[in-house]
Amino acid sequence: IVCLSMEGGAAASTPAALPYYVAFSQLLGLTLVAMTGAWLGLYRGGIAWESDLQFNAHPLCMVIGLVFLQGDALLVYRVFRNEAKRTTKVLHGLLHVFALVIALVGLVAVFDYHRKKGYTDLYSLHSWCGILVFVLYLVQWLAGFSFFLFPGAPFSLRSRYRPQHIFFGATIFLLSVGTALLGLKEALLFNLGDKYSAFEPEGVLANVLGLLLACFGGAVLYILTRADWKRPSQAEEQALSMDFKTLTEGDSPGSQ
Amino acid sequence: IVCLSMEGGAAASTPAALPYYVAFSQLLGLTLVAMTGAWLGLYRGGIAWESDLQFNAHPLCMVIGLVFLQGDALLVYRVFRNEAKRTTKVLHGLLHVFALVIALVGLVAVFDYHRKKGYTDLYSLHSWCGILVFVLYLVQWLAGFSFFLFPGAPFSLRSRYRPQHIFFGATIFLLSVGTALLGLKEALLFNLGDKYSAFEPEGVLANVLGLLLACFGGAVLYILTRADWKRPSQAEEQALSMDFKTLTEGDSPGSQ
Repeated sequence: IVCLSMEGGAAASTPAALPYYVAFSQLLGLTLVAMTGAWLGLYRGGIAWESDLQFNAHPLCMVIGLVFLQGDALLVYRVFRNEAKRTTKVLHGLLHVFALVIALVGLVAVFDYHRKKGYTDLYSLHSWCGILVFVLYLVQWLAGFSFFLFPGAPFSLRSRYRPQHIFFGATIFLLSVGTALLGLKEALLFNLGDKYSAFEPEGVLANVLGLLLACFGGAVLYILTRADWKRPSQAEEQALSMDFKTLTEGDSPGSQ
Repeated sequence: IVCLSMEGGAAASTPAALPYYVAFSQLLGLTLVAMTGAWLGLYRGGIAWESDLQFNAHPLCMVIGLVFLQGDALLVYRVFRNEAKRTTKVLHGLLHVFALVIALVGLVAVFDYHRKKGYTDLYSLHSWCGILVFVLYLVQWLAGFSFFLFPGAPFSLRSRYRPQHIFFGATIFLLSVGTALLGLKEALLFNLGDKYSAFEPEGVLANVLGLLLACFGGAVLYILTRADWKRPSQAEEQALSMDFKTLTEGDSPGSQ
């Protein structure tokens, strides 16, 4: 029942079904990104920064950053369950940085496009949810960095914050998926109008894209919440880990 | 650490903060229902079955049934943690029946309205997600009833199905919230058009309603997933429960 887990050690085994679920989630995620590209390329004229096509950078960046990469960042602790915790932690933080930077490009794209066109900013539910997601994501990243990567946070504080970090991480990811769905819906109603109800190919493609978004969110959530796929618990690691080097540096060995 | 838990007994104590979080979630849920009513009453002409106002029964029924009641059904095991498990189980099933019936009325309302108006059915992402939610909800209810309420399912089968039931229950609830957001967005873009970007009161009210929907979903998820707020674990109950009456009836005492 108890797995010995040391920095750099690989004592815990990988559950048999986990790799298949992870592979399935990645297939969903990549299909999602490809289909977003296909939608923008086939029906929305493609992407270019210095033109009206600048808007199209927004959905693509958001799907890559705040959906695909954010989702994968959450899965890092399940996928690399046998790697050293510090390595996994850094990869988790890095994926979130990439996601944040790509999302920032997506955010600039839409504000810049609105400014050039003279459109009103931030009136829709999609935009309100989007700003909420972005602010929460930034705060979560800064809090995560301060507690878990920056050395010096006491072990007790890390233990108390960890469940909150995990809950809000999952919630922000789900809210990102929801916000993407709202944005997709907005784009469809703006662009297609009455043609949407005539089952035009673009409408059907975009509906399938929406279902894929929801499925990717569900797949990540499933892998994340399966109790027997979690890394060995904090208490066990704390009790069994023997890495005095990190201990003396003020970094608890069992910290995530 | 181990709590004695017997049918009808009240050995486990309630965590100090839980009632406040539950109260907050209920406040959010009731505000959500009231605000949906206010939106439909103030800006959409109210509700009547035999007229064009039949459509308005759809959002109200869905918010009451598939958001508020479904969410509360998930919370039953946290709120009534000291009640007999069978009582809690029946209440959980009943709340889901109410939610299902109210959602069915909401579903009939929109299909009937579409038929009278000659509108196309099931072309939008909202409707695809809605049908998916409804089918999954029905299957989940039937599976839950067969495994947990109908006597005779072996204990091992119940134990294996329980985590799946909980995961899919939470996922269907979140998908319901997402579908409601898509529907709200659709209604706003259809009804307000250009006025949406002029920050008309209806648009702002509906945006706040959307944020409330997301917050209610988040609050239910938080209460549901907090590890220290769960009922005492299955294994402990199984080992400690002494209710031979239900055992001989083929119903495992620790079953949920």
